[in-house]
Amino acid sequence: MTEGDRDLSARMAFLMEADRLKSVTRATRLADGSREENSAEHSWHLSLFALTLAPHAPEGVDPSRVIAMLILHDLVEIDAGDTPIFGTAPDPTEAEARAADRIFGLLPPAQANAFRALWNEFETAETADARFAKSLDRFQPPNLNLANGGGSWTDYDVTEDQVRARVGAKIEHGAPALWEWLSPRIAAFFRLGG
Amino acid sequence: MTEGDRDLSARMAFLMEADRLKSVTRATRLADGSREENSAEHSWHLSLFALTLAPHAPEGVDPSRVIAMLILHDLVEIDAGDTPIFGTAPDPTEAEARAADRIFGLLPPAQANAFRALWNEFETAETADARFAKSLDRFQPPNLNLANGGGSWTDYDVTEDQVRARVGAKIEHGAPALWEWLSPRIAAFFRLGG
Repeated sequence: MTEGDRDLSARMAFLMEADRLKSVTRATRLADGSREENSAEHSWHLSLFALTLAPHAPEGVDPSRVIAMLILHDLVEIDAGDTPIFGTAPDPTEAEARAADRIFGLLPPAQANAFRALWNEFETAETADARFAKSLDRFQPPNLNLANGGGSWTDYDVTEDQVRARVGAKIEHGAPALWEWLSPRIAAFFRLGG
Repeated sequence: MTEGDRDLSARMAFLMEADRLKSVTRATRLADGSREENSAEHSWHLSLFALTLAPHAPEGVDPSRVIAMLILHDLVEIDAGDTPIFGTAPDPTEAEARAADRIFGLLPPAQANAFRALWNEFETAETADARFAKSLDRFQPPNLNLANGGGSWTDYDVTEDQVRARVGAKIEHGAPALWEWLSPRIAAFFRLGG
C-alpha cells in the first residue's frame, strides 16, 4: 500500500466514524417543531448561517475558517453527547477533549493536528473567527425556538433573563449586529408570555 | 428599518426556510443502517468530505469554493425533493430551477445572484471545483452502502455495472484518486454476492 493509499484509508475511517454525528440528538427542535435536531444537520445549518451572514461579521473575520470550524465543532459529541445549554449536565470539557483525541486521531498525523488546532481555537474562542463561529452556534437555536413557539426554552422553563445572560452575551461578544437584530425579537416573545 | 436590517431580515428568512432541508429524506441509509439519511445532514457530511479529502483533489481545486457549493447544492430539494440516482423519477431539472429561483430569491439580490451562480456552477459541472464537488456527492453514498451492507443498491436491485456506469464514471471524472480507492472495494462487495 502506498503512503497516499494509507492516508486516504485513514481519512475514510474518520469520515465514516463522523457519520455517527447524525445520531446525536440536541435539545432544540426544528423550526416546524416536528422533532429534535441532530448535531450533523445542526452543523450544516450553522455552516449555511456563516456563508449567508458573513456580511454581518465583525471586520477581519474569514468566513472559510469559520465554516471549517463549524463543520468540525460538534464531532466530539459522538463520544461526549450534546450538552444542552440550559440543562444541568456535568461540564463536558474533559470528555470532549478525550473525544477530540480519539476522533481526530483517526486522521493522518499532520491533518489530525490541523483539525484539532481548529477545534481548540473554536473552544477557546479567543480569535475573531472563533468568536463569530461560537456566536452563530448560540444564535441559531433561539431563532428555531422563536419559529416553533418556545422549543427548548419552554422545555427547560427558561426566563428571558437567563436567555440574555447565557446566550445573548455570547452572541453579542462575537456578532454584535446579530444580537442587535435578535434582542428585540426575544423581548417580544417573552412579553407575550413566552 | 435600515438597509442593513432589511438585508439581515431577508437573510434570516432564507436561513429559516433552509431549515426544511432537514425533513427531505434520501434513498441512502446511515452507515449503521438505522434509518435513511436526510439532505441536510448529507450536505454536512459532504462538506466534511471536502475539508478532509482536499489533499486528494485534482490540482487547482479550491476547497472553500467546493464547500460553499456543497452547503448550497441540495437546498432546491426543499421544493423538488430528492431524486434517487437509481430510481425512475422524472428528470428534476425544471423543478429544481424553479426551486432555486424561489429559495435563493429570498436573499438580498446581490447575494441571491452569487449563491445562484455557485449552484449553477455545481449543476453544470464544467469547472474543476464543481466537478470535484459533484464527485464527492457521488462518492459518499457508495461508502455508506458498503458500510451498511448494500443499502440503496439492494433496495433498487442495482448491479455492479450500473454502479460503475452511473456513479463510478462521475467520481472518476472529478476525483480520479477517490475512484481508484473505491473501485476495488465495490468489486469486492459484488464479488461476495452484493
